Order: sequence, then structure tokens, then C-alpha cells
Amino acid sequence: LPTDSLFAPITTTDELLESTGDRAWVQAMLDSEVALARAEAEAGLVPVAASDAISACCQSSRFDPVELGRAARAGGNPVIPMVQALTSMVAPEGGPWVHWGATSQDILDTAAMLVAQRATKLIVADLARLADGCDTLAETHRRTVMVGRTLLQPALPITFGFKAAGWLVAVTDCRYELRNAVSGLAAQLGGAAGTLAALGERGTEVAATYARLLGLPEPVVPWHTARQRTARLAGALAMVAGTAAKVSGDVALLMQAELSEVSEPAGPGRGGSSTLPHKRNPIGAAEVGSAARRAVALLPVFFGGVAAELERSLSAWPAELHSLTELLRLSGGAAARTADIVEGLEVHAANMAANVDRSAGSLMAERLSLALAPHLGRSTAHETVATAARRAGSGSREDTTAALLADPAVAGVMSAADIRALLEPESYLGVSDSWIDRARAYHRQFPAL
Amino acid sequence: LPTDSLFAPITTTDELLESTGDRAWVQAMLDSEVALARAEAEAGLVPVAASDAISACCQSSRFDPVELGRAARAGGNPVIPMVQALTSMVAPEGGPWVHWGATSQDILDTAAMLVAQRATKLIVADLARLADGCDTLAETHRRTVMVGRTLLQPALPITFGFKAAGWLVAVTDCRYELRNAVSGLAAQLGGAAGTLAALGERGTEVAATYARLLGLPEPVVPWHTARQRTARLAGALAMVAGTAAKVSGDVALLMQAELSEVSEPAGPGRGGSSTLPHKRNPIGAAEVGSAARRAVALLPVFFGGVAAELERSLSAWPAELHSLTELLRLSGGAAARTADIVEGLEVHAANMAANVDRSAGSLMAERLSLALAPHLGRSTAHETVATAARRAGSGSREDTTAALLADPAVAGVMSAADIRALLEPESYLGVSDSWIDRARAYHRQFPAL
Amino acid sequence: LPTDSLFAPITTTDELLESTGDRAWVQAMLDSEVALARAEAEAGLVPVAASDAISACCQSSRFDPVELGRAARAGGNPVIPMVQALTSMVAPEGGPWVHWGATSQDILDTAAMLVAQRATKLIVADLARLADGCDTLAETHRRTVMVGRTLLQPALPITFGFKAAGWLVAVTDCRYELRNAVSGLAAQLGGAAGTLAALGERGTEVAATYARLLGLPEPVVPWHTARQRTARLAGALAMVAGTAAKVSGDVALLMQAELSEVSEPAGPGRGGSSTLPHKRNPIGAAEVGSAARRAVALLPVFFGGVAAELERSLSAWPAELHSLTELLRLSGGAAARTADIVEGLEVHAANMAANVDRSAGSLMAERLSLALAPHLGRSTAHETVATAARRAGSGSREDTTAALLADPAVAGVMSAADIRALLEPESYLGVSDSWIDRARAYHRQFPAL
Amino acid sequence: LPTDSLFAPITTTDELLESTGDRAWVQAMLDSEVALARAEAEAGLVPVAASDAISACCQSSRFDPVELGRAARAGGNPVIPMVQALTSMVAPEGGPWVHWGATSQDILDTAAMLVAQRATKLIVADLARLADGCDTLAETHRRTVMVGRTLLQPALPITFGFKAAGWLVAVTDCRYELRNAVSGLAAQLGGAAGTLAALGERGTEVAATYARLLGLPEPVVPWHTARQRTARLAGALAMVAGTAAKVSGDVALLMQAELSEVSEPAGPGRGGSSTLPHKRNPIGAAEVGSAARRAVALLPVFFGGVAAELERSLSAWPAELHSLTELLRLSGGAAARTADIVEGLEVHAANMAANVDRSAGSLMAERLSLALAPHLGRSTAHETVATAARRAGSGSREDTTAALLADPAVAGVMSAADIRALLEPESYLGVSDSWIDRARAYHRQFPAL
Repeated sequence: LPTDSLFAPITTTDELLESTGDRAWVQAMLDSEVALARAEAEAGLVPVAASDAISACCQSSRFDPVELGRAARAGGNPVIPMVQALTSMVAPEGGPWVHWGATSQDILDTAAMLVAQRATKLIVADLARLADGCDTLAETHRRTVMVGRTLLQPALPITFGFKAAGWLVAVTDCRYELRNAVSGLAAQLGGAAGTLAALGERGTEVAATYARLLGLPEPVVPWHTARQRTARLAGALAMVAGTAAKVSGDVALLMQAELSEVSEPAGPGRGGSSTLPHKRNPIGAAEVGSAARRAVALLPVFFGGVAAELERSLSAWPAELHSLTELLRLSGGAAARTADIVEGLEVHAANMAANVDRSAGSLMAERLSLALAPHLGRSTAHETVATAARRAGSGSREDTTAALLADPAVAGVMSAADIRALLEPESYLGVSDSWIDRARAYHRQFPAL
Repeated sequence: LPTDSLFAPITTTDELLESTGDRAWVQAMLDSEVALARAEAEAGLVPVAASDAISACCQSSRFDPVELGRAARAGGNPVIPMVQALTSMVAPEGGPWVHWGATSQDILDTAAMLVAQRATKLIVADLARLADGCDTLAETHRRTVMVGRTLLQPALPITFGFKAAGWLVAVTDCRYELRNAVSGLAAQLGGAAGTLAALGERGTEVAATYARLLGLPEPVVPWHTARQRTARLAGALAMVAGTAAKVSGDVALLMQAELSEVSEPAGPGRGGSSTLPHKRNPIGAAEVGSAARRAVALLPVFFGGVAAELERSLSAWPAELHSLTELLRLSGGAAARTADIVEGLEVHAANMAANVDRSAGSLMAERLSLALAPHLGRSTAHETVATAARRAGSGSREDTTAALLADPAVAGVMSAADIRALLEPESYLGVSDSWIDRARAYHRQFPAL
Repeated sequence: LPTDSLFAPITTTDELLESTGDRAWVQAMLDSEVALARAEAEAGLVPVAASDAISACCQSSRFDPVELGRAARAGGNPVIPMVQALTSMVAPEGGPWVHWGATSQDILDTAAMLVAQRATKLIVADLARLADGCDTLAETHRRTVMVGRTLLQPALPITFGFKAAGWLVAVTDCRYELRNAVSGLAAQLGGAAGTLAALGERGTEVAATYARLLGLPEPVVPWHTARQRTARLAGALAMVAGTAAKVSGDVALLMQAELSEVSEPAGPGRGGSSTLPHKRNPIGAAEVGSAARRAVALLPVFFGGVAAELERSLSAWPAELHSLTELLRLSGGAAARTADIVEGLEVHAANMAANVDRSAGSLMAERLSLALAPHLGRSTAHETVATAARRAGSGSREDTTAALLADPAVAGVMSAADIRALLEPESYLGVSDSWIDRARAYHRQFPAL
Repeated sequence: LPTDSLFAPITTTDELLESTGDRAWVQAMLDSEVALARAEAEAGLVPVAASDAISACCQSSRFDPVELGRAARAGGNPVIPMVQALTSMVAPEGGPWVHWGATSQDILDTAAMLVAQRATKLIVADLARLADGCDTLAETHRRTVMVGRTLLQPALPITFGFKAAGWLVAVTDCRYELRNAVSGLAAQLGGAAGTLAALGERGTEVAATYARLLGLPEPVVPWHTARQRTARLAGALAMVAGTAAKVSGDVALLMQAELSEVSEPAGPGRGGSSTLPHKRNPIGAAEVGSAARRAVALLPVFFGGVAAELERSLSAWPAELHSLTELLRLSGGAAARTADIVEGLEVHAANMAANVDRSAGSLMAERLSLALAPHLGRSTAHETVATAARRAGSGSREDTTAALLADPAVAGVMSAADIRALLEPESYLGVSDSWIDRARAYHRQFPAL
């Protein structure tokens, strides 16, 4: 079969490719078969020798994923040919006991939980790294004044530390969300219709052992057509991707040449262009943004699949499997890449200051307006400042001061020094410092595993 | 302006239309302005008289939503014209202090949280009703044997109680999910760029009072461009809609004339057709399914909006507002309608039994196969049963017994009585009873508010 | 019932609200009933007097949409109560003949086509206006040099006319797409299961007359569960919204204060902020972008609904109805608003020139690199220019010239005058002019209706 | 790098995997480079020897996709490392001329068009096969009466030929849609910002030759950020997938054991279950439905990307590339599998007839009601029939006849023979035959390539 390695690596890491690749899935499926056989042996349903034989053969290296994938077409899933191959391997003593009492979905759902559990460990680590990076920026740039922008327009002065604090809280929220979703992953064992009929009265006991052996929580009941947990996981992963795209997207906007307030980390071959020698492209942000667009698009596959028919859905469940691989890769890739960006971010504080200076009139307009309001009335003050802003040649401090003083109503109540003081951004940062403190405390309180 | 009342009521309740309609939104916006003025008065930033004047005027009946909506076009949101109108009302003493230090998004985000908090109370109640309905069915039909169907084909016998127990766990999971999402709703107050600059050093104090007065939790920091909480809420609501569609979709499938195992509750005008006098349509399921399709489609609006630019997004945030109204209506409507369906469900146990009888051969094939495996080997047993199933004229017990006995390999190891016993569905229900017990216990443990 | 007028107007026009509102839908449903009765009278299936009586009563002013919407819940659609009301109105002679042989979906699908046909006339007109606006900009700014930006970074010089020509082609493509989709709208008449059984042998004749009377094409066969035409329409409308968001999004990016290359049209109350007196917000772009996000999210409702079950889908079809209203409003609103933006756009050519000047070194790097390649080899030339770009204090022409000349390898093959000539953006615009000509010709060839 | 072959084959064909795999993409990229070099040589911009050297090396077997994919991370796309590798291969004479004047997106967009053009040839062939299969069923089963079902409930009798005719029209619509979309695929060549600045005045000439050599239409202007054509293609492909899911979904519903009206084609290993020996699963429908769910989910990636920023989007365009591969595979796989299902479909006409018989009372209720209306009035007739339907023990002809005759109002105007005649489904098929004729004619008119 042809390979698919040309685009996939761009939006994820090698570790995630590996932990969600064919080999990882096959091993997770085999792990489930092992746990099943052992749990049934413990319950006395399967001979210990058979269970041992099965366990000995359940190594992914003994199976060819390409063959399994091709053979999967006939029955719609790769468990059927895998069980056939495994049965041949362990024959004669183990053969009859392979997959005893289970259904394909038991094995694939459990494998999906194992793959997700293993891959999210990587994502959790990258999110922690991303949070630490934001935390450092929040503290380091606590006093780095810059333009706060709303609807892409200058609004008020903020600090870069305050911005990073906002990122930090968003990332920490994602960490809680992902932790909750991961804690809800559960083993799946129900047999053909969820009743574990083939196991007689030992069903619940076997299911409990099976989950314990796999290191997965036991669900209240089998969840073949109760897909709340995969939907929740998908939501958490899409939130991670979106949050990474928020942070890296801010970086791309601030990296615009006319702003030049930050740069993605440089390095050999990073962000180059095939034609333009000078370009320093926000390639990290491009890749994260692209991953996020694709991750968010996968949500309906999971949430639409919650409406699964009767005891096993026709098409909703199979659509989840490949989509889960994609989502883990995209969200994890977005988190890792954004952590790289934040950790290595170049912050151009001087450019930030220069951008503040040249739009001081705009940035401080609210303050000027509020200061004039008691004298002129709120509405007149608002209009006065807006008019002066339009009349000032530029938005610089001097031009704005001059334009305001040219209005007799202003000149009657304020001196040039008063206005200049009002135009100081450093003294109009509100409670930015407190927000930074709160964000950092929230981060520190995130429980270690 | 023209009305939009022709389709909206079909997929929601009057209570939800009301609690998310114009009047509800305007009142929530006004409640936010009142809380702001009072919090600022407490902090000594605004005269108490002004705060009182503002509070006195903040009644939605004094504002015309149609006019506000039209005027909203100029600035992109209805807060601007509402503040203008309110300022005129409370002039001269209150005027300058209306909306002091806040930005439009503060008011709209907080209003969205209030609307969501109020509307989700209705949804929470309907989910409780739905869960109780499932719980009753699970107990009542603990022994009602029916066909379990996977990929829309008969698989194994289950009980209707077991099926309802699966619904119950799914609904209970949604209740937890929605409760978590609602507990994360938080007041929004940050001013133009999130720093509360206009409030000087009293920003955090005012923000705390504001949240307290509104009965909303205080966020770690303002969240103008940290949309994790609205995404999480959207996810929970879409999960509710999807779960409702799962339950009602099962009902629609079981209601097919050839199955006739359940019926949606009857009543005058319920489920009729404009042409066909005889039809008993699964109209509830149709409406719930339709609501769920639309609810799931709204997810990308919220999760895509997590990548919000800088200190206020250009287009992502405004897209959330109308979508939230839709999502609350659709998800809540789906929950309410499904609760109605479950509470009034007609269960046709005799038809269930008849359907089991006529496919007993199929349903018990796994059991027959497992019973023959020790004698014939697993693979041969599997083939033997499959061949007999194909050969039997129908899937009924008698035909299946005869077809099996016609195979000498079977006849050599089993009698007709053995086979008939194996074909008893009541003794092949596995641990259905335990699952029902566990589901009901999980339901009972759901904490009251 | 509560109104919903607070947010809806922000993203659409009054004309679109009206042409897709309750009254418009009810009238379109009634128009379908009239056409049905008349076509059946022509075929001799219904008495002419009955047909006349029905036609006389089919005025939307005689029906209350709020009542119909409420009553629609019982059967899942408003045709059932409307037919009941109409039957009472025309009793006794007309009563038995109302809705003869039709099914609710016949009337609603046909009404949807009429509503879409009428609403798209408005959209078509706004797209024509938008195309004309782009065409004017393309010609007027044929020589207005500006920075071309890729990945939000300066790439090469372009002209604003070239940019507008790109918009023009995109808008023209949308006009073709929408025209094709609209030409595929077709009348729907099939009766309860598509066979027109109640009309005996006159079914095809009645269906043909019905379509003719309504001014709609006749489909090959009834399309109750063949939803290709609504999916195609949804695709065209989402493309319109996306294209509008492309154009207005470019405007918002160029409007950033640090670029200030264009401004959305000004006007009283346009683009103001509730707090910041100075802000000139890209409100048009915000509203268009928000509409596009919501429009695109609706696609899965239509394309997912293509998989409609058997002879009438359970939940896919009903989900289309409200979504069509939304999509027409959002796409049409986006087109209209973008036409306003383009028609009134303020182009700040001097700022464009200044932005070119200050990044000339970057913009002309490709040209410098290509010019040096024959002398230094391609890879060395690329590196040489990149190094000079990094070393130059700014990207201005003088700094770049100096930095390059400081490299002996460059100085050996080029004079300062050579370099300055290479740094002229006006002479490095490639075939921009030809593209403009081709775009304008493509626009002029678009056929008038 | 790990492989991804475990799930991908399930929802597509080997031919599509191959024609959209790494090798196919790399060759398409190289084909674009060849066409570029040759077109530039024709225009005298590049030495013919260089062009020949480049052409000689542009064989995908000389490149390692896995290496290219890994190296693609640095710059966000695989063209950069591919151009570097190619430059080394053709050095010294060809090196400087590789990729002359082009940008990465030129090569990737053109490659995407080539990949799409080649892959859609396969899809077009499978759609033709699917249409022929539907055509055959329509004619063969012109008189095969079956239950028409709306909202999953029996509505009126139809024929299986009529149903297949509906499928046929839907598939033919898709063929037109896909043909239109494919005809709009166009070469991409604009250079770094769309102006072809590096090619001086020969830009349009080179672009024309480039397109001609590739066998692709020339666009009006470069379309780096005018994504209407990829959105249109995505729409057509999603429509194909949805239509396949409609057809195969109908099959799955009719295959339900209690209906047993059709079966997917049988064969060794087709539709088996890992546990249940007897199951004949609608595996084709499961796989097609799963493919369609994922295909539809990809639409927002394309339509959302229409809003591409300035001269090259940051993240929208890269998200298209991998998604296009997916969409071609999923839609093409759905079409191929559905063609298999339709070609090999087993139609159980006897079961169809039996199902009609046992619900004759229901199916003919409209006819009974219309027949009674002149005597009893429409509303009373409707009620009378509904009441009789409820009272009849079953819906069989005899029970229904008896129940109706038990009502004196009916007995007064109709004999048992009258009622039995009205209960004949064969005489209540309306214009099914005409629809079949029209559908088949529409199919025959589809132009051969």
C-alpha cells in the first residue's frame, strides 16, 4: 500500500505519529485480547494454558498492519482478521479461547482508549510546557507596555505579561478539561449486545478484571452506543487545538512586519520561503492554525455519532476510529508546536513601546474622555476627544496634546502637563498586575499527576 | 420587523423560547448594567444616587428590542444603542455613570452567562425528568426480553430494561457534563482591553462585587478572548441533544411497523400526517433528531472561535451570541421532547417476544456455536451454526432445531431438548440484571442541587 | 411568543429578513396550495369553483404564523395546521379539495424553493453591486503600488488594483455558482410517497402545470429524499458568504492602525465603540465575518441530509427548513454589507506607498536575489540577500542599498544605482496589468439575466 | 515513520489510495516543476538544457516522501525540501533554474489539481457504474411492489423500480455536479504574490504554456486566495459521498431482518461478525455511511478557507491539502462500494410482497379515505379510516375490510368487493412508471466524456 507521510508530519510530532500509528493500534488491540484472556482465565472460564499461549503471541511485531487493513474491508474492522491470525498462531490449545465472548467493538473501543491514554500523556506534557512558557512570559513582561488591540484596532495599553497571563489561564483551563476527559476513558467489554451473555454469570467479574489489567477505569455499563466519553474527549482535544491556535495566532498577528512586536523562534530552516530570501514566516502559527481548523472540523464526527443506533451503530462508530487518530495528532501537534513558539519567543519590547508611542492619542482616548467628562459632560467629552484624535496629524503624544489644547473647552480646564500625564500609558494599566498574579497562582495550583 | 415564529417552536419549548428571547436578553444586559453601577457605587467610584437611578430604569419593558436590534448594525452589537437609551433615561444625574468603565462585550458576555444559567435550569429539570423516565423503564422492563440489534441486525437477546439502563447512564453522563459546564459560567468585566483601566486600582474589587451581585462565579481573569467556557458549554449542550437523539432515535427504529415494539405517546394531533389517516409517525423523534443535527452543526462556531484574535476577536465572538440562543433552544427542546417520549412510551412486550421468537435461531447462534465448540472445534462450530441458520426455513426455534439436528455432527453430541434449551433467550441474558442495578445506582447517586 | 429581533438584523438586511420571514414562508406555502388546486382543476380532478375558492383564501394576511408555529409541534410541520385552517375557510364547497393528493413536504419544499428564489434575487443584485465595486477599484487603483503580503508578511509589491481584480474574479465565480444553483431549484409534487397515487393517471400532467404556474422548473422525478439541489444551493450560499468574508477580511487587515491602507466607509454611528471615542472599528468586516462563520457551519445540515432515509427522512429534511432561512439571511447579509464596504472604501494610497518604502528591502529581495544569481549562484545570492536584509537597520531602500554594497561580492558586480533601480517597486509588478484586464473582461462577460 | 494502513483501506479502494498517496503527490509536484521549466524554456527565460535536465530528474522514484514530509515541517510544506533536492540533482547547469519564479503554493495547488483530476477519473467511472446499476434495477423492478416508507413508517405502495429510479436521478445529479467541479480545476502560477514579477513581461505567456503542458485549464487570474474552485470540488465530492450513503443506507434499512427486502451482495468473508455466526451485516452500508460522515465533516475546512487572508493565507490553505486527499478517498470509496452493492444487490420480491400484504390496511388508507370522502366528507372519511385501522387486529387486507364494514357509515356506501379492490396495491401506484421512464431517459442523456 502507498504511504501517507508527505503531509502528516507537518502538523504533528514524530512521537504522536508513532503513538497513534498502525503499530500502536495493533498493540493496543492485542493488549485488549491479552487482558480478556487473562481475566477469563482468572474467572476460570478459559484454561490458564490458553491464556498464556494467547499472551505470548500478542506482540504487534507478529502482525502486518497493511494486511490487516486490507482484510478489514470484508467485515468493516481489523479485529476480525487479527483474531483469525491470532487463532492460527495459538492453535491448537489456545485457538478456541481467543476473543472468547467479546465483540470486535470491545477490542477496538478498548484499544482506542489505550491509544488515547498513551497519546494524551504526550499532549499533557506539552501543555504543561506551554503553560510554563506562558507563566515565564507573564512574569518577565509584567511591565512591558504594549498596545492592546480589539477588532484588530488599538484600544488601550496593556502589558505583554498581561497578554501572556490570559494565554496561561486559557491553557490551564484546557489542562483541566483534558484531564477530566482522560479520566473518563474506560474499558469496553460487553460482548455482542452488551450483556456479556457468553460469560454466563461471570460477566461483571471478568469485566472488572479486564479493566484492572489494562489500567483503565471500569464503566458503569458497556458503552457501545453511549458515546459521551469519546465526544467529551474530542471536545477537550479540539479545545486544546483552538487554544494553541489562539496563542500562535496572536504571535502571527504581532509578527506582522508593520508591528514587529514578537518573532517566532528562529533557527536553521525555520520559517523560510521557497522564493523570498528575506521572509521570516510565522510557520509555526501557520501549522498550528491549520491543525486547529482540521481538529475542529472533526467534532461533528464524534458529537453526531452520539446518536448511535440501538446496540451498535451502523456507521457512526466506525467513523470515530480514524478520526480519533487524526484528532490526537492534530491537537497534540498544535500543543507541542505552540509550546516551542512560546518557549523560544523573541519579544521586541522596544517595538512595542514605539507602537504605543505613535498611537498614544488613540490608546489614551478613553482616559482623556473620562477625565474631561466631569467638566464637559460625558457625551461632549467623548466627542471632543474623538474630534481631537481625528484632527491630530498623527496619534503621537505631542500631536494629540496640541490638538486637544487647540480646543478652548479643553484648554479652559487642563494644562499641557495635565494632558501629557494623562497620555502616560504606564499609569493606565488598571489591575493588569493583579490579573497576572491570579493567573500565575491558578497555574501553580494545577495539581501534579 | 417580520416575526420568526413559524419553525422555531417545533424544536423547542415555549419556556425556552421565552428564556432566550429578546426580552430575556435585554433584561440580562440590563441586570449586568445594574450590577456594574452598584458595584462601582460600593467602591465609591459612582455616586449612589446615580447607581440608584440606573437601577430604577433597568427594566426590559422600557426598551424596544426591535429598535435596539436595528440600531445594533452600526456598531455591531445592541449594547451601544441600549446604553445610549439608558443614558437618556437617567440623565442628568445618572447619565455620566451608565456603563462606567465597561465595554460592550462585558455586558453581552455577562448577559449570555445569565441567559445560559436561566435556560439551563429548564434543561437540567428536563434531563432529570428524562433520567427518571429511563430509570422507571429499566426497572419495569427488567425481564422484558427483546431482540438486541447491532448494525440494524438481530444479534443477541437483551431486555428492554437493559436498553433503558444504557439510556439512563448516557443521560446521567450528560447531567454531569452540563452541570460542570454551567458551574464554569462566570461574570465578565474587563473594560476595553481587559485591564479595567478606567477603574484605577479598584478594578478587582468592582469585578468581585459585580460577580457576587449577579450570582455568577468570578473568573481568574477577564475572558474576552479565552472562550474555553463557552466552548465547553456548547459541547455539553450538543452532547445533550445527541443523547436525546440517541434515545428518541431508538424509539423511532423500534416503532417501525414491521417491529412495532414501542410507540411514542399518543394524543390528539400527535404524530398525524396531512394525507395519511392511519399513520402514527414518530414525530417526537423527528423533531429531536432535527434539533440534534442543528445543535451539532453549531459546535464549530464555538470551538472555531476559541482562536480569538488579541484582546477582542473580530468576528468569532459575535458569532457566538445568536448561536448560543439557538443551541440552548435546540438542546433543551430535544431534552424536553425526549422526556415526554420516555415518560409516555408505550412498550409492546408481546411484539418484542414475538420478534424474539421468529429470529431465535439467529439470536442464539453465538450460544449454539459456543456450546458446540468444545465438541467440533470453534471454527467448525461457527460454520455449522451458520450453515444451519442459512438452511433453516425461518429463524424460528423449531426450524433451527430441525436444521441443526439434520447435521450428523450436531446430532452426535446434542439432543433436541439440549438444543431447545440453548434456544431459550431468557437464560442467555448474561449480566443484564447487574448492569441495570449499576445504572440505577449511578442515577440515584447523582447529587441533588 | 417572544420576538427574536435583537441579534438577527446585525448580520442581514431588512429586505432579507422580510423575504425569509414568517409572512414570506406562509405566502409561499399558500402559493403552492393555489398552484396545486389550479393544476388539479385544469386536469379536471378538482372543481373549478373549489379551486377558485381556495385561491381566494390563500392570502398570508388571513393566517397567524405564531399560531401555525405552535400548532406545528404536533405533526412536526406547519402545513398540517395551515391546511386545517384553509379547509375551514373554504368550506363547504372547497374544503374537500384543499391540498388534494399532496403531502406536507410537497408544500414545504416548494415553498422553500419560492422563498429561495425570491431571496436570492436580492443576493444576486448585491453580488452584482459588489462586483461593480471591485471592478471600479481594480481600474482606479491599477497603478496604486502597495505591499503584497503572504502569511501576513510582506512578500512582493503589488497594486491595489491587482488585489481588487482578485476579489472581482472570486465574486464573479460566486455569481456563476449561485446562478447555477438557483437554476436547479424545482417544484416538488409527489404525494405521500412520491408516486402521486391520489391523482391517478393525471399525476405527471398536474405536476407539470403546478410547476408552470409557480414559475419553477419541473424536476425529473419528485425529490423528497434526493436533496442534491438544496445541498448545491447551500454550497453556493456558503461560498458567497466566504467570499464576502475574504474581501471584508482583507479590508480589516489593511485597516489595522499600523498599516492604515484602507478604511471602511465612515458615517454617523458606523464603527463606533461604546467606550473608546477614537476607535474606527472594522464593524462591517466583523459582521460579515461573523455571518460567514455561521453560514459555513450550516453546510453539514444540508450535505449530511443528503443521506435521507427511504421515501421521507425522519430528521434530515425538517432540519433544512430553518437552516435555509438562516443561510439566505447570513449569505445575503454578507454580500450586501461587503458591497457597501467596497463601494464606499477609503483607499489611503499615500500610506500604501509609505509602507512599501519602509520595507523595500524585503519586498525586492526576490528581485535582488534573482539579479545576483547569475553572478553568485542561486543559493549564494539567496543567502547574500537574506544576510543583507538582516543586517540593514531597517528595510528602507537606503539601508538595504548600503547593506548590500558592504558585501564585497555584491559591490564587485553592482553599483549603488543598479541596486536602487532594482529596489523600484513600480518596475517589479510583473503582469499585474494583464491580470486586471482579464478580471475585468471576465466580469463584463457575466451574462445579464 | 510509522504506517497508517490499518483503517484507511476500509473506506476506500486501493486505486484511490494509490492515486492520492505520497508517490502520486510527489509525481504531481514534479510534473508541475517540469511544466514550469519547459514553459520558461519556450519563453526563452530558462536555457533549454536546464529545462531538459530538470525534466529528466523529475521522477518520483528519485525522492523519498518520508524524508520530504519530515523536512516539510521547517517551512510548512514539502515543496521547499523537494526543490532543494531537485536543485542538487540537476546542478550545476540546471540548478539555478529549478522552480524559477514560482512559489511553493503554485506547485502544491497545481499538484492538487492533478491529483484531483486523476483521482476523480476513478470516481467518475464508479459513479457511471453505480448509475448503470440503478438503471438496471429501475427497469427490472418496474412492477415489483413494495412498501413505501416515510419517517420509517409505511405510507403508500411503491415499486422497487421507482425507488431505484430515485437513486438514479440522484446519482446522475452528482455526476453533473462532479463534472462541473472537475472542469473548473485550473493550473496555478502566480509567483510569490500572484504577479509573476520574476518572469518580467512573459508571465502570462509562461502561465498559458504551463497550463497547456499540464492539460489543465488556465484560470482568469492566479487563485492563491480565491478558493472557490476547491470549495466547489469539495462540495461535489461531499455530495457524492452523501448520495452513496443515501443509497446504501436505504439498503441497510431494507435489510433489517424483520423487513428482509434486500441483501447486500454475499461472498466469502463479506459482512461477517467476529462473534455471531449467523449475521449477514450490511457492512458495505456501514463503510459507506462512515465515509460519508467523515467526508461531510471536511466541508468547513474548504468553505471556511475561502476567507483566505491577503495574498496567501496563514493556515487555511495548508489545511486543504491533506483534507483533499481524505475527501477524494472517502467520496470515491463510497461511490465504488455503493456501486458494488447496487450491482450485486439481492432483491427479495416475495418478502416485499408479504410486507405489503400485512400492512395493506395502512398503505391503502389514503385511497380508502379519498374514496369515502365524497360520501362522508373528507374529515369524517379520514377519521373513519383511522379508526378502522386502529380497530383492525392487524393491518392485513381481511382485517381491514372487516373493520371498515363494521362501520355502518361505510357499509352503507361500499361492499366488501369495493373495499378489497381499493386495497389492491398494484392499482394504486400513480405515475411510478412515468417517473421510471423519465429517470432512465435522464440517465441516458448524460453525455459520454
